[in-house]
Amino acid sequence: MTENTAIEEERDDDAYVLDKGTVAAVLEAVEQRDSKRLAELTEPLHPADIADLLEQISEADRHELIRLYGREFDGDVLAELDEGVREDVVETLSPEALAGAVRELESDDVVDIIEDLDEPQQEAILDALEDADRVAVEQALTYPEFSAGRLMQRETVTVPEHWTVGEAIDFLRSAEELPEQFYHVILVNPRHEPVGYVTLGRLLSSRRDTKLKDITEDSFRTFQVNEDEADVAYAFNQYHLISAPVVDEQGRLVGVITIDDAMNVLDEEHEEDILRLAGVGESSMSDNVLETTRQRFPWLAVNLVTAIIASLVIALFEDTIARFVALAVLMPIVASMGGNAGTQSLTVAVRAIATRDLTGSNVWRVIRREALVGLANGLLFAVIMGAVGVIWFGSPALGLVIAAAMVINLVVAGLAGILIPVVLEKLGIDPALASGAFVTTVTDVVGFFAFLGLAAIFLL
Amino acid sequence: MTENTAIEEERDDDAYVLDKGTVAAVLEAVEQRDSKRLAELTEPLHPADIADLLEQISEADRHELIRLYGREFDGDVLAELDEGVREDVVETLSPEALAGAVRELESDDVVDIIEDLDEPQQEAILDALEDADRVAVEQALTYPEFSAGRLMQRETVTVPEHWTVGEAIDFLRSAEELPEQFYHVILVNPRHEPVGYVTLGRLLSSRRDTKLKDITEDSFRTFQVNEDEADVAYAFNQYHLISAPVVDEQGRLVGVITIDDAMNVLDEEHEEDILRLAGVGESSMSDNVLETTRQRFPWLAVNLVTAIIASLVIALFEDTIARFVALAVLMPIVASMGGNAGTQSLTVAVRAIATRDLTGSNVWRVIRREALVGLANGLLFAVIMGAVGVIWFGSPALGLVIAAAMVINLVVAGLAGILIPVVLEKLGIDPALASGAFVTTVTDVVGFFAFLGLAAIFLL
Repeated sequence: MTENTAIEEERDDDAYVLDKGTVAAVLEAVEQRDSKRLAELTEPLHPADIADLLEQISEADRHELIRLYGREFDGDVLAELDEGVREDVVETLSPEALAGAVRELESDDVVDIIEDLDEPQQEAILDALEDADRVAVEQALTYPEFSAGRLMQRETVTVPEHWTVGEAIDFLRSAEELPEQFYHVILVNPRHEPVGYVTLGRLLSSRRDTKLKDITEDSFRTFQVNEDEADVAYAFNQYHLISAPVVDEQGRLVGVITIDDAMNVLDEEHEEDILRLAGVGESSMSDNVLETTRQRFPWLAVNLVTAIIASLVIALFEDTIARFVALAVLMPIVASMGGNAGTQSLTVAVRAIATRDLTGSNVWRVIRREALVGLANGLLFAVIMGAVGVIWFGSPALGLVIAAAMVINLVVAGLAGILIPVVLEKLGIDPALASGAFVTTVTDVVGFFAFLGLAAIFLL
Repeated sequence: MTENTAIEEERDDDAYVLDKGTVAAVLEAVEQRDSKRLAELTEPLHPADIADLLEQISEADRHELIRLYGREFDGDVLAELDEGVREDVVETLSPEALAGAVRELESDDVVDIIEDLDEPQQEAILDALEDADRVAVEQALTYPEFSAGRLMQRETVTVPEHWTVGEAIDFLRSAEELPEQFYHVILVNPRHEPVGYVTLGRLLSSRRDTKLKDITEDSFRTFQVNEDEADVAYAFNQYHLISAPVVDEQGRLVGVITIDDAMNVLDEEHEEDILRLAGVGESSMSDNVLETTRQRFPWLAVNLVTAIIASLVIALFEDTIARFVALAVLMPIVASMGGNAGTQSLTVAVRAIATRDLTGSNVWRVIRREALVGLANGLLFAVIMGAVGVIWFGSPALGLVIAAAMVINLVVAGLAGILIPVVLEKLGIDPALASGAFVTTVTDVVGFFAFLGLAAIFLL
């Protein structure tokens, strides 16, 4: 207990939230158009923190800041920005400042920036690049969006497969230019197909006459250039990879993906799942009212349709309700419990599909489990609600009806929560996106129908 | 469009789901007690995949498999297993097999395994370790749970800060034993405080007489041993770290955390957030019916209380409903739209708090935005539902009442969705865990009260 408290306290003075004082000081410098003070304040900040700052201030302040910042705008900040804000910043930067910023970047970062921009903005950035970089970026853009080809860096460190440790070290020492980040030396055969890799640590600690082939890592695996980046990220996490070669359709080495890129993708995939489950497509703190309204409207519209369907079910029983108004008081409880149980079951299923923990091998066992869990919780809450019904309205018959409806709806909720995402996945539809609406419709319709239907039969 | 389809297709024959045929073949070998065939089948699998297999088969099959597997049980599989299944496997393994398995592991993996187990199981594993490892594990267990100290590996590669590249390389070549994984050489001062690090790539490509001090990385930062692992993971992701030294309270180096550990923590944090938002504490596909029922009951109980509160609001208007049953038909629509809008706003807020994108600098602007988005969507759906009300029930007054209630509830939903998680975070309560119940209670109560209250005033 004391251990947890210590951690909680540390969280409170959170070291990684941009400190409010810094933001206020930056805004003051912007207001006073004091570019020297602005440079002093931002100088010690990491580009990722400057990007966060640009996202957190208002649009007007952001434009002022960029104008003051002028030509010193750091390309790395551009790479760290959220899509929406990045578009705004690219539009605000002068052509010279934009050219200066992107010229500093590695080609994979430029690809990352350029792929989300509009055509004219893309042109502006491509024009700013040197010829070699421009070709590299255009080449990368020919790979499908969200593919390994877009994620990889083209700079690789390769040696012939028959070399020794000594030869590899001498080669590295004499190399003109090495990538900023590399963790392995990749062994290639004469057809330039990667056949294994050796970690730099192993290279440094092995005898010079050791054959590289004899000290390659077991973890070695390659990715296809067209492979989905989400699958790549999954494999990095599952197999604890640090870097991995990317090959084209002929199996030839074309680039390398490193774990920090994979971590980024994993983070984005999670973000997407969590937002989709809540019916929010994309979203950022810096989106304005119009963008946010537009993002949220479609899901609310879908929900309106499902709510109206549920209302149609209620309308079938208008006479019953008119004669026994207690039903109107209690019916939302049955629907709400079903909705929540369904969401529990659904969320667990969606996550398990995403993490490959729900497969053909265990799906039937999990379906059976969800039905039984629904039954168990249904019986528990049937007893509780039955008692509430009797005490509140003094009617044992009403207690029995609500108890029975509760059991039925929680079993159905458990089943719908697992079956709907599994079927959607089979149909190639993202279960995170579409399951919620279906599950709620099922639990609302079944909940109202079971409760009011049983009431119509047994209470009148 | 064609690009996306190509990716979808690739996803279908998913290379990273344990192939159904393999699982079936393994189960057949287990049934026939054919341990030679079992070894053949599992030999090519990665420990992470064997762990997945053990999680996906039934408990009875798992026990049979472990008995057949006998003494060859791989420690790495143990490290990859989910908590619940791991406990089961540790209990099923013979003491000799368990001892053999844990002795192969690095001390940080043993810590990871041992911290979730019961006391007697912990003892069994500690007894199996060699003395040096046992001390290392016991030392690590003195750090708080979920701290950097638990996450780090104790094996580090350090050199005096005044050394040259040549001295460092000679030291590495002659070192008796180097950690399995390392990406940096850490520079320490005479008090054993880390002062910088050099990547192995930079070391290999620099001249022998270069001072290490002159080629250290800008990205260098250290973590406190008691720091929350979630903060460490955040910093790795935010600042693109690959590895980072961990220091004790005196600032002395005690270990190093690498990006793959951080990636794991990030993954677990996300999992926790997504499950907590849905009211599921912990959960795994391998949990049985009893465990799952127990995990889901508490949240359903909370939801029952909030549903009953909403029902009490409805009960206030029993007379109104008795005289105008259409209200019972329409009232769930208002509540449901509010609940969904609140969940959207809430999920975005909870994520933004977790990713440090919602801070003191922008919280007021975001609150204002949520209120305005609620107003905008409220007005849109007011028009739609007003029309539905008029067409369905032929009553313009009813249409106006539901339209007004819709606007009120969507504005309240937007505000509740942002304010409740922000306040909970300030109070030190995990907003992912508790916000849902509060937000739904608010939107149900406000939805029913606004709709039925306005109806009581204007329709009777």
